[in-house]
Amino acid sequence: MIPAWLLPEYIEDILPPYARAAEELRRRLLDLFDGHGYELITPPLVEYLESLLTGAARELDLQTFKVMDGLSGRMLGVRADMTPQAARMDAHLLNRQGVTRLCYAGPVLRTRPAGMLARREPIQVGAELFGHAGIEADLEIQALLLAALRVAGLPDMRLSLGHAGLFRAMVAGAGLEIRAAESMFAALRQKDGPEVLALGTDLDPVWREAFLALTELYGGREALDQARHTLPRTRDIHQALDDLSRLMDAAKDAPVSVDLSDLRGHGYHNGVVMAAYAGGQARAVALGGRYDGAGGVFGRGRPATGFSLDLRQIMDCLAEPEARRGILAPCEEDAALRCRIEQLRQAGERVVIELPGQQAFRGESGCDRVLARTATGWDLQPIQPIS
Amino acid sequence: MIPAWLLPEYIEDILPPYARAAEELRRRLLDLFDGHGYELITPPLVEYLESLLTGAARELDLQTFKVMDGLSGRMLGVRADMTPQAARMDAHLLNRQGVTRLCYAGPVLRTRPAGMLARREPIQVGAELFGHAGIEADLEIQALLLAALRVAGLPDMRLSLGHAGLFRAMVAGAGLEIRAAESMFAALRQKDGPEVLALGTDLDPVWREAFLALTELYGGREALDQARHTLPRTRDIHQALDDLSRLMDAAKDAPVSVDLSDLRGHGYHNGVVMAAYAGGQARAVALGGRYDGAGGVFGRGRPATGFSLDLRQIMDCLAEPEARRGILAPCEEDAALRCRIEQLRQAGERVVIELPGQQAFRGESGCDRVLARTATGWDLQPIQPIS
Repeated sequence: MIPAWLLPEYIEDILPPYARAAEELRRRLLDLFDGHGYELITPPLVEYLESLLTGAARELDLQTFKVMDGLSGRMLGVRADMTPQAARMDAHLLNRQGVTRLCYAGPVLRTRPAGMLARREPIQVGAELFGHAGIEADLEIQALLLAALRVAGLPDMRLSLGHAGLFRAMVAGAGLEIRAAESMFAALRQKDGPEVLALGTDLDPVWREAFLALTELYGGREALDQARHTLPRTRDIHQALDDLSRLMDAAKDAPVSVDLSDLRGHGYHNGVVMAAYAGGQARAVALGGRYDGAGGVFGRGRPATGFSLDLRQIMDCLAEPEARRGILAPCEEDAALRCRIEQLRQAGERVVIELPGQQAFRGESGCDRVLARTATGWDLQPIQPIS
Repeated sequence: MIPAWLLPEYIEDILPPYARAAEELRRRLLDLFDGHGYELITPPLVEYLESLLTGAARELDLQTFKVMDGLSGRMLGVRADMTPQAARMDAHLLNRQGVTRLCYAGPVLRTRPAGMLARREPIQVGAELFGHAGIEADLEIQALLLAALRVAGLPDMRLSLGHAGLFRAMVAGAGLEIRAAESMFAALRQKDGPEVLALGTDLDPVWREAFLALTELYGGREALDQARHTLPRTRDIHQALDDLSRLMDAAKDAPVSVDLSDLRGHGYHNGVVMAAYAGGQARAVALGGRYDGAGGVFGRGRPATGFSLDLRQIMDCLAEPEARRGILAPCEEDAALRCRIEQLRQAGERVVIELPGQQAFRGESGCDRVLARTATGWDLQPIQPIS
């Protein structure tokens, strides 16, 4: 007999005081986005499957829980990513000609965890900028991502930049076919130099060396300088390196590095890609980048760049939140007491009514003070241990 | 060909500025609960079906979307109500001996809308008090519900009280069998007097008249007085009427009435039940009441009372929110500009960078001021119409 309280694998409650800490972080992030002009949207938990699994999001198919809709007889998907929903709203509902900035926060659901320590219900918080193809939009998104990570107070934070356009330009330059490009992609992600060389045996030596070089091109600005010397000087390659230089320059003293074989966004992203790490975790706490053409399936393809993070994963990197302290108040009908309680709550205090028979459980209440009747009225006193 | 942007029936996006207004209401409600000692929990979107459809929540079976869990081969349900999840956390995880106060806010999903104007994805915000069987706990919940409705700023708000224990006491007193009780329940909910009389033909005339009287016993305090004269004087019936009197007295000048044939909570609730109405809507915006025995299936049955509301439905009752105004700032690298922007954002302003090429779309930006370079630095100016 499996106990009723058992939760499915990789599915978790958030208990007090963690849930409140996550709520406060959610608020700080949404307020940060709001201050930068990102308008909050709340897309639904479920949509018709075709709406969720559009174009760039096809890789989400296996990740998406499917249910039958009794009202329409069609399949619904529970959202596994809110980015396509934001793109739909930009393309179809808002339909603005200029730049549209959107942000969102909410749970998404996945059939399988992304890794051993991952969960199947990330709380996705993100910001997306639609309608601008220039590097200025990527610069804004990078600055916002860095600000979000600072707001979260993440320890040992660092940002790693890559460029999905760089790999695409090299595939085109070298004349790699799709199958071969996919194998090369896999080898580069593993930084597997011998495999890269093996896959490149039929290529022009210039391109073979260039692919091999990618596996070594990571680090600070010097990696970009070296890339300029090592990689073929095609227009698209130089454009990608220029983009990365602009981003590194703008980051100033933030810990930003590049990794030219970090191709995580390939297939979804098509320009700059960003991955943020923190707290010594190997898995990125935030992912972002450029994905031009977003919303095309909804009738209007638009340039797009943005990022999102998982609030649960960020909470894992932070110190245990402090429990909220409170004030116990007696359960009495007294106008002066009621007034005092109201004042304290208005001032941000938690005031808990001690219901009849609860004195024995004061230790569980989380309260460190009590409202007591004195000669002058109702006064705050430290809680006396029960004898 | 069905367009990709089409949403399923009774499923909706929340667009700007409504999503931000809903977020701000969510915050005010959670802060209200927090100030009263209700600790925030975040239960998961999905659980094993048996955990969601426990005891009192069996009626939710038809309302719950089911999916197969590929990791366990077991059925999962997408939560249609967060109350059983709160009861699980109280009973099993927190496991306190004294009173436990919990609150929550999040989307739930239902296979069918509750009515013509309902939606299938309510945003449920609620507060639950576990571990206290006394009327004092119901009084606290009623006060908190009234405070929540005030915080929401609902127009034409009123609270209707009923008592599931009253009907149970009458069923027991009259010796009604389960089938007959179910028919009586249905007739009473419809306030169908002739049907009530017909169902009561075999009953003692005292009880038949008592059931009939229920259909007329609604309104203010006079309805309770009349109930005391009309209904049989059993202990449980008088206890129920005393409970309702206490609640009406405590509500003071809040618009609270009773309806003794409002049995919506029957089967789920077993004491006082509460339904709040607003904005002239026929459907309640908040529902609550006592449901003792909660959590029993998780190993520990506890007294429980609480309420929840649907943020989407409450938004329907409120006036259209104002769009957030902002300040446009030029996309320039200038230390003084950057500093000014930071100051304005810290002061709560929305400052939107005007990316290159966006001047033509100023009308879409929602901004009414612009940061302009003057002899003295960067100053705020009203936006000039584009010539």
